[in-house]
Amino acid sequence: MNGTSKGATELAELTVQEKERIARAALSRLMEPQDIVGLALVRAVGALDALGIATGELSAGASVEREITALLSQDGTTPTWTGMATSQRRWAPRVRDLAPERDLATMRRLGGRLVIPGDELWPGQLADLGLQEPLCLWWRGPERPIPSPRRIIAVVGSRDSTSYGASVAGDFAHGLAQRGYSVVSGGAYGIDAHAHRGALSGGASDMPTIAVMAGGVDRFYPAGNEDLLRTVTHQGALIAEVPPGSAPTRYRFLQRNRLIAALASVTVVVEARWRSGALNTAHHAESIGRIVATVPGSIHSANSAGCHRLLRDGGAVCVTDVGEVAELSGRSGEWMAADKETPAEPQDGLSLEDLILLDALPLRSASSVDKLATVAGLSPDAVRAGLGRLGLLGLASSERGAWKRSGNA
Amino acid sequence: MNGTSKGATELAELTVQEKERIARAALSRLMEPQDIVGLALVRAVGALDALGIATGELSAGASVEREITALLSQDGTTPTWTGMATSQRRWAPRVRDLAPERDLATMRRLGGRLVIPGDELWPGQLADLGLQEPLCLWWRGPERPIPSPRRIIAVVGSRDSTSYGASVAGDFAHGLAQRGYSVVSGGAYGIDAHAHRGALSGGASDMPTIAVMAGGVDRFYPAGNEDLLRTVTHQGALIAEVPPGSAPTRYRFLQRNRLIAALASVTVVVEARWRSGALNTAHHAESIGRIVATVPGSIHSANSAGCHRLLRDGGAVCVTDVGEVAELSGRSGEWMAADKETPAEPQDGLSLEDLILLDALPLRSASSVDKLATVAGLSPDAVRAGLGRLGLLGLASSERGAWKRSGNA
Repeated sequence: MNGTSKGATELAELTVQEKERIARAALSRLMEPQDIVGLALVRAVGALDALGIATGELSAGASVEREITALLSQDGTTPTWTGMATSQRRWAPRVRDLAPERDLATMRRLGGRLVIPGDELWPGQLADLGLQEPLCLWWRGPERPIPSPRRIIAVVGSRDSTSYGASVAGDFAHGLAQRGYSVVSGGAYGIDAHAHRGALSGGASDMPTIAVMAGGVDRFYPAGNEDLLRTVTHQGALIAEVPPGSAPTRYRFLQRNRLIAALASVTVVVEARWRSGALNTAHHAESIGRIVATVPGSIHSANSAGCHRLLRDGGAVCVTDVGEVAELSGRSGEWMAADKETPAEPQDGLSLEDLILLDALPLRSASSVDKLATVAGLSPDAVRAGLGRLGLLGLASSERGAWKRSGNA
Repeated sequence: MNGTSKGATELAELTVQEKERIARAALSRLMEPQDIVGLALVRAVGALDALGIATGELSAGASVEREITALLSQDGTTPTWTGMATSQRRWAPRVRDLAPERDLATMRRLGGRLVIPGDELWPGQLADLGLQEPLCLWWRGPERPIPSPRRIIAVVGSRDSTSYGASVAGDFAHGLAQRGYSVVSGGAYGIDAHAHRGALSGGASDMPTIAVMAGGVDRFYPAGNEDLLRTVTHQGALIAEVPPGSAPTRYRFLQRNRLIAALASVTVVVEARWRSGALNTAHHAESIGRIVATVPGSIHSANSAGCHRLLRDGGAVCVTDVGEVAELSGRSGEWMAADKETPAEPQDGLSLEDLILLDALPLRSASSVDKLATVAGLSPDAVRAGLGRLGLLGLASSERGAWKRSGNA
């Protein structure tokens, strides 16, 4: 833990916000994006003390543990949390690799920065994620603010897009950028890349496009999109909640999707297979009251099956041109207001893991445990345990060993 | 009026049902399908006396007029009805052409029959049309019953179908017929023809397909479908509510659509332009609590624009394979039950003409009077008068001379 211990004396000379920045830089390396206990700890005691507790330099009293429990239950999350000691054991292996000043220097060298809550550049709409608001954003690109959600549309979809999906994504993004919208996507091959390119080509705004990475922003991933992502760092923003050097793991992809959903007022799924990461983004968007829209396509195209699924499940709006998409962004405010008034749902008290599992559960034909494990990115054992919990809540039901959502889910 | 006066003495020797049949045969030539006053008259006094009143042989007392007024208001229809004399003047020009026995003989010669309510062959589901239940069905084809609505799916769409629409209509109809469903459509070029052909090719039931004609069943219309429609008369049913020799006028097409919608539990719109007769069938289906389903397609195809419109308006279910269509037929019972409990709507009291106009009014971008006249099949003057009435009820609103539905419509 050379980074933080060396920096301990220097910290005293820094402003509060800069100390906070260094602490959050360190915490973002210690804690995975989905570490809800870690996020609650930061809420409870602040980033500086959280870092002290996470590294074992400070001890967390019973009152801190009580506060974390309260925060988790207030957020509607009830992980199997067995006290701070368990979490500390999870963080311990990474403590010796902490070097937040080095990471911050890397960002400066890349023409970037670390943005944290309280900064002018912090996108306020991320607060809609509640306890799952990210600790910080590692950010490459000109120092320009990210627009309000009403001026951002997420355009997402399959990596293996068809020429139809490519043309729709490009057209929509181009038209949205021309209308002054910013297009957010995930920087991946296929629909994401066509969305970024279309937005850059139509760019009439200061921030035509934003790419949210699952891994560190020091690397352009995937390599085939290097030129595109480099252009994004010149004209838009390349952001991630994980520090430089972080690999884009499957779980980080799923977590990254919540940032795409939260930045925008509307998430448009252009093409998606029956099981697709883009549907995960759509579910994130729905869960925080954002609008989900989708593009219809041929029923003979497997790449539109996920879109039709969203239409059939009733949550998504069918959009057929860029005007219809832009129109939706004006409606997002009403939807969010309406959303706040809805009563508690059975799924409100679920852990993130169980929510992901619930998202993965099909509404109609049932899925095997192995299939669910693949879709949800969880181990088969974790899936089995989660299905048990969801079953008790009446949210999942099984038929001959296969599972689907049940009526009230 | 050679037909009825010559038959007057013979009538005494016939059974009640046969007298009724001859009277309805005559009435179906006197009255256009949308003649709601004529339909109410038949309800009020029976077909035989209705024919007497319609031909001027009997006079309708004040009590009959009161009963008709009551029936019309009970049905939710309030046409500008100014007493029986007006209607009699409308019917008078056709009285001298009446020859019901000749028409019945024509049907026998064609291997067909006239079916009326009370007959074993009468499809009970047509009663869901209320006062707009047809007077009779002129029917060519084997003497086999039309299945219950749960076993009938309507497959409809554009005349100028694409290869995509043709293949979907054919596949769906084939698969439905293989599952024992009967496919009803309108016998037109394009989607209708592909639906009938697909059903005939998959035929596992006694009644694989039913074609409902807008004109008389003595003629195969359109001529290019002659072979197909002839096959339908051998293996299925070719039916119409207008007598032999009737031309398929535009208004009869629109009225015919209500029969297609009422025969089936589910109406599937496979391909439809933004303005399409298939959407009129969908609206009829919706108005009597049937399920409307539609097939998504490329947003670049004008032939799918009407389908996407149905999806966006929220009334239609997105279907992507034949299994999903079949599944919907099982749900129709619930929907109809739920429908019966819904409270009165502002449009409940409208005349058929105003309902057609309301159907034609776009929800979003407004239409000119001329455009509405084309879509609704009404004269511009009738459209203007109707818009005035809909405007007073808060169902239509105008913007710079163009009209659309307003909020509560």
